[in-house]
Amino acid sequence: MAAIKSFQELSDYIKSGKNGGRKRMAVANPVDDHSIEATMHAVDEGIVEAYLVGDATIINEKLKGQKNIALAHVVDVKDPQEACVEAVRMVKEGECDILMKGLVNTDVILRVILNKEHGILPKGRVLTYNSILNIPGYHKLAFFTDPAVIPAPTKEQRIEMIKYALNTARRFGVEKPNVALLHATEKANPKIAFMQDYLDIIELWKNEPETFGPCIIDGPMDVFIAMDKERGAIKGVPTPILGEADVLMFPDFQSANCFYKGLVSFGGAGMAGMLQGTEKPVVLNSRSDSAECKFYSICMAAIMA
Amino acid sequence: MAAIKSFQELSDYIKSGKNGGRKRMAVANPVDDHSIEATMHAVDEGIVEAYLVGDATIINEKLKGQKNIALAHVVDVKDPQEACVEAVRMVKEGECDILMKGLVNTDVILRVILNKEHGILPKGRVLTYNSILNIPGYHKLAFFTDPAVIPAPTKEQRIEMIKYALNTARRFGVEKPNVALLHATEKANPKIAFMQDYLDIIELWKNEPETFGPCIIDGPMDVFIAMDKERGAIKGVPTPILGEADVLMFPDFQSANCFYKGLVSFGGAGMAGMLQGTEKPVVLNSRSDSAECKFYSICMAAIMA
Repeated sequence: MAAIKSFQELSDYIKSGKNGGRKRMAVANPVDDHSIEATMHAVDEGIVEAYLVGDATIINEKLKGQKNIALAHVVDVKDPQEACVEAVRMVKEGECDILMKGLVNTDVILRVILNKEHGILPKGRVLTYNSILNIPGYHKLAFFTDPAVIPAPTKEQRIEMIKYALNTARRFGVEKPNVALLHATEKANPKIAFMQDYLDIIELWKNEPETFGPCIIDGPMDVFIAMDKERGAIKGVPTPILGEADVLMFPDFQSANCFYKGLVSFGGAGMAGMLQGTEKPVVLNSRSDSAECKFYSICMAAIMA
Repeated sequence: MAAIKSFQELSDYIKSGKNGGRKRMAVANPVDDHSIEATMHAVDEGIVEAYLVGDATIINEKLKGQKNIALAHVVDVKDPQEACVEAVRMVKEGECDILMKGLVNTDVILRVILNKEHGILPKGRVLTYNSILNIPGYHKLAFFTDPAVIPAPTKEQRIEMIKYALNTARRFGVEKPNVALLHATEKANPKIAFMQDYLDIIELWKNEPETFGPCIIDGPMDVFIAMDKERGAIKGVPTPILGEADVLMFPDFQSANCFYKGLVSFGGAGMAGMLQGTEKPVVLNSRSDSAECKFYSICMAAIMA
């Protein structure tokens, strides 16, 4: 497949049916307008068939006037936490391909996801947030990690996060992604925090490339070198990635968070994201996410499912 | 004075002479075209009178064809490090108001600045980088700290950094600046890294407001709440700052660095910055900074001098 370079292309690709048709999405407690609208938008666009797990009376009321209710199956579970338990079970037992959070606190659904017996995080797997930024000024999508879950990743976590992001980029048709290890300092000074981790990861990639599959990993480099050919070139730091990063490994979740929010507010950027590490994709939209963000997050999950 | 809300207004204000006329700027080793051009641009605009400390033969050659060479005084010092020593001396002894780095490594000039006997950092003062972002989509300037010098500030350093940024904002005419303590998490959970520092700073502001002077300090909050009224409001976190931050205290220098570079590359933003904590403003432009960035950094230093 040709690489998907924008959210418009993502939407076109998914709607074309090339992704293998509708995925089955379990939504935990969609008893608010936001959750119903986001879900039904994805249903209407042919992306998912929905399993709405929550208070049937409320959900049926909210479904009134929606177009494709034949593709929206209501599973009656009154208690929000129990709705999470049931939605997670449906995903775990293969009845659904994607899990989405409705009106329930993130902590609550996370506890169910992380439950050792009934949850969907395999033992030893790193749980992280895998995201995509569609920046109008950038000529392709930026797959970035992690703006939300791991405050300060260890080297081992970073390796897993890079693998997840590479996997995502490849599912989007980027055959040999460029991975930029971002840092405010471009000099490879091992005395600086987590710089040694970056150097070790690059060594690992050089010595055991099969760990990551086809890709280029380089750094430390700043945002200019990673994504801005003109400004990056002036710095004179030699790298094959210059201005062509596909995957951005951020120093910490603070920097990823500030970066994407700045560009969403002032750079016209769109954002999509999902939990990764779980057996199936988990869409954890919050109320403050735009309708566009919710829609593209479901598209992303549908490709990854 | 009315608050300066954009770099255009900054330039207009400085050129109007309201800032008290030309400042005297010592430039350490300006033996390259970049340094000469940035300096003479500021000279031509009436902002500074320049003292060019370096190899006179080279500098005079590069000055050929420049308009206002009567306002560019060459001080002949062949060795780059000695040029730094002389430029710092001129600033220390009151012969100049601003120090600017020419073609010399940042480490080299920093060592001279930090020299206990002959340097210009008073004992016990926090050295940090004080910056301004001019974002086309934001309705005023964003004074932010620190994208370059202190990787992970302590609480005491943060207090000084806030004071510096407040001082800068007030010099720009913002009488009662809004200070946003940025964090990826809006919940004030003291278990999370440096959150307790934020809470202590807010307590200090409430109990001893004279520490900071007229201002509002609030947080933790994310970029949306601080700078984006619409997206921030959806989060429902009550704050008087909502969408009206003047000063941004970033979690760490990684997040400040990623934030501003993203917006410079993809949000049309302009950036200005200077070292603060020193007796006089220090402009530390690098070769990769745009001509605009260099010019506005000198304007900023001229206001702060």
